[in-house]
Amino acid sequence: MTAELTGTAEPPSGSLEFAALYAEAQHFYAHQMRILDAHDTESWADTFTEDAVLELPTMPGPARAHAALTHYVRVGAARRRRAGGRLDHWVGMLDVRPRADGSLSTRCSALVYATPSGGGPKILYVCVMEDVLVRTRGGTWRAAHRRVVRDDLA
Amino acid sequence: MTAELTGTAEPPSGSLEFAALYAEAQHFYAHQMRILDAHDTESWADTFTEDAVLELPTMPGPARAHAALTHYVRVGAARRRRAGGRLDHWVGMLDVRPRADGSLSTRCSALVYATPSGGGPKILYVCVMEDVLVRTRGGTWRAAHRRVVRDDLA
Amino acid sequence: MTAELTGTAEPPSGSLEFAALYAEAQHFYAHQMRILDAHDTESWADTFTEDAVLELPTMPGPARAHAALTHYVRVGAARRRRAGGRLDHWVGMLDVRPRADGSLSTRCSALVYATPSGGGPKILYVCVMEDVLVRTRGGTWRAAHRRVVRDDLA
Repeated sequence: MTAELTGTAEPPSGSLEFAALYAEAQHFYAHQMRILDAHDTESWADTFTEDAVLELPTMPGPARAHAALTHYVRVGAARRRRAGGRLDHWVGMLDVRPRADGSLSTRCSALVYATPSGGGPKILYVCVMEDVLVRTRGGTWRAAHRRVVRDDLA
Repeated sequence: MTAELTGTAEPPSGSLEFAALYAEAQHFYAHQMRILDAHDTESWADTFTEDAVLELPTMPGPARAHAALTHYVRVGAARRRRAGGRLDHWVGMLDVRPRADGSLSTRCSALVYATPSGGGPKILYVCVMEDVLVRTRGGTWRAAHRRVVRDDLA
Repeated sequence: MTAELTGTAEPPSGSLEFAALYAEAQHFYAHQMRILDAHDTESWADTFTEDAVLELPTMPGPARAHAALTHYVRVGAARRRRAGGRLDHWVGMLDVRPRADGSLSTRCSALVYATPSGGGPKILYVCVMEDVLVRTRGGTWRAAHRRVVRDDLA
């Protein structure tokens, strides 16, 4: 865990603004994960800023999110083949920290489950995602930085 | 997926009002699913409008929610018998789209798990629920339309 | 279930203030469960009021939360040994009821899963937590009372 998120015992004091940011961040993840699970790579890329950086446990180092799309799509397809069916993400346990520049430091858990054709869902693994979200001029949020950690690989 | 929810890449711009609606919708589902899992059919019916329409994968076509209650109760009881214990719903991944008439188009995932007596919980399936929620005069929300989709039956 | 939470069919009418409280309560649980799963007992104790009371299915009766810490830590360590790896909590299905004195009656579900080294996550059980949260002078929330119920032990 980063010091930024765990070093302070105090979560930010409550306010209407925090509620708005928290709802928007929850909405962002529900939206982005549905796009990811639908393999809509173009819309998915659109949820990252142009120069977004991505750090994944399956990649040797940080990479530009848009350049990493091909890698992401290939890894996802291989996972679905191995799982014998569709893969889905379930996001929760969201922590949101507003930053002075208006961006958000977030951390959430993403449960990844497979649904083989004709069978029940099976949890494959749980990731922790640490993002920096920035608000675009249109008012929507995009990820400027994402670091994905898998606890079971730690 | 409906065009309304996936056709636009942009989620609604953030605002305090969106936060209020998002919190109320989350609260509605936590409340309604607890009622459902407690088999409190009268309170459950009360979470739908009088003329609400229900589309379930276990039904041949759309039906009035209040008329479908008997079906729902029977299917639920059969499922609990097969599962050998209690069934519970866990709702998440909520998408909320305010509509011009003040109602809400929502989509969420509902994970259904069984807890057999003496055993650990087992995930049975994951549904996607697409609802239209309307606000009643008392200020509470009710479902006016619900379409339940099971990904593994698609 | 307590009469307070289930006796009324009507959830509280929506408002900006409810949204703020709901977001803060969600944030409180995401924060507190991460602290618990990281075995940071000092920070964890800090999420309870000085005189908080804890009722756990593994304890013979209600106890002061701070005094129960040792018990909690020992039970947690024994569980991790049995599970052969880390244990994590996933909180959801949150119900929040503001009370006249400014405190919150909450109920949520906590899914507890184990991740054995080298294996995938396995759901162990699901608890229901019924809390009273109070706001401290600093603006943060703390639990003044927690009752944990396990459905599968009922």
